[in-house]
Amino acid sequence: MKPLILIANDDSIYSKGIRVLTEIMSEMGEVVVVAPDTHQSGMGHAITLGEPLRVEKTNNFGDHIQSYKCSGTPADCVKIGKHQILKGRKIDLVVSGINHGSNASIAVLYSGTMSAAIEAAMEGIPAIGFSLCDFASDADFSHCHDYIIKICQQVLVHGLPKGLTLNVNFPAHSSMPLQGVKVVKQANAIFRERFEERKDPYGKPYYWMDGDLHNEDLNNNTDLDALAENYVSIVPVKYDLTDYDELKQMQSWDL
Amino acid sequence: MKPLILIANDDSIYSKGIRVLTEIMSEMGEVVVVAPDTHQSGMGHAITLGEPLRVEKTNNFGDHIQSYKCSGTPADCVKIGKHQILKGRKIDLVVSGINHGSNASIAVLYSGTMSAAIEAAMEGIPAIGFSLCDFASDADFSHCHDYIIKICQQVLVHGLPKGLTLNVNFPAHSSMPLQGVKVVKQANAIFRERFEERKDPYGKPYYWMDGDLHNEDLNNNTDLDALAENYVSIVPVKYDLTDYDELKQMQSWDL
Repeated sequence: MKPLILIANDDSIYSKGIRVLTEIMSEMGEVVVVAPDTHQSGMGHAITLGEPLRVEKTNNFGDHIQSYKCSGTPADCVKIGKHQILKGRKIDLVVSGINHGSNASIAVLYSGTMSAAIEAAMEGIPAIGFSLCDFASDADFSHCHDYIIKICQQVLVHGLPKGLTLNVNFPAHSSMPLQGVKVVKQANAIFRERFEERKDPYGKPYYWMDGDLHNEDLNNNTDLDALAENYVSIVPVKYDLTDYDELKQMQSWDL
Repeated sequence: MKPLILIANDDSIYSKGIRVLTEIMSEMGEVVVVAPDTHQSGMGHAITLGEPLRVEKTNNFGDHIQSYKCSGTPADCVKIGKHQILKGRKIDLVVSGINHGSNASIAVLYSGTMSAAIEAAMEGIPAIGFSLCDFASDADFSHCHDYIIKICQQVLVHGLPKGLTLNVNFPAHSSMPLQGVKVVKQANAIFRERFEERKDPYGKPYYWMDGDLHNEDLNNNTDLDALAENYVSIVPVKYDLTDYDELKQMQSWDL
């Protein structure tokens, strides 16, 4: 029996990345796409509370692929995909992406792509988030194909322990061939923000946020290191945020 | 010198919880409030990308407290608080809340309250998120006062290691006195969703999401255990999501 694969993303159902991912996953199993109807980058693990969700069938991927656009966030898409659209069926794998832009290092925390994968893990489904270090809407994803197939096959064979999901990032396409895959840790980096103040036509201020990621964790077997060396990076990500070392330390606090 | 304390939340600057927290923190230091101008619950670690932010001074807390309302998410409030409003000043502590509703267990991942605290930790500032297990807009926070003072004093004395923040949850107010504080781990729970389908006046479907948290981690020294026993729960939370055990295991994969 072919595995049942649910696909989500945060760049919306109209992005090139989800089209590429859907084509690749169709080689491996039965594919159902549930993706946001608008761009949801930077949405983190937002969910829709206090408002209803809209879901509509599309034929965005042709007649042979079941696909739905949803008014909610990436995490909402996984929830409604599992509990409403695929109600009662066992989902073998959730894949999210391919994101237009890196989700390495601390970007994992802001990432709608990864929140869809983490949401699936919370639902007990093996899940992988894929991202490409290229923000262009027409980015070249051709070097990702074989690696995505291999990583997904390994997850279908090995499974993933409860609570775990994979954060996979690809270097941008270049003339250099990829060097392979490295399983690494999330780099400790800082996003240094700048706020640019402008005035609107009525004289009132507004602010544009901008900034750069500074890697404070160089040459330490991280995802940023691997990507800089033209490797595919895989970080095993868990959603238990407890710091167990600190939990012991804090027993000495006077509370 | 009095410590400089930045306050944010996700229930908006108009909620009772941030008013209570601001009053308490004013006893300890110089307070600046930067909070969303609308309700942002369930926003997770969303940030505003591709849209500008509005920030406006308010006198919501009287003339003696500097306060600003912001059009962005809880994480945005911390970013613009540090990099624009308090530019160049050293912030000694960021506190977020008091949230109307629990952020124990996996709710930490959806929580705007905690994302403000985690954002501060990412900026290298000691930070604490406070939540009350009561969603009512007029909830009784009176039992929280002494614990908040004590926990903040301990953080100002001990500091917090880089990358760490505290997720503090209070049981709802009751006739039973609190039993004390427990430093515990994030409970492994599952949110079991239901989607209720309705039809709009034009015959098109929409969906309300609802559900219950199921604790799969009973009697295991978790935050949910501590709260059930009427203790204040503190989970030390880190934003390095790497699963280091699994990182070793995955070396045997064929990639």
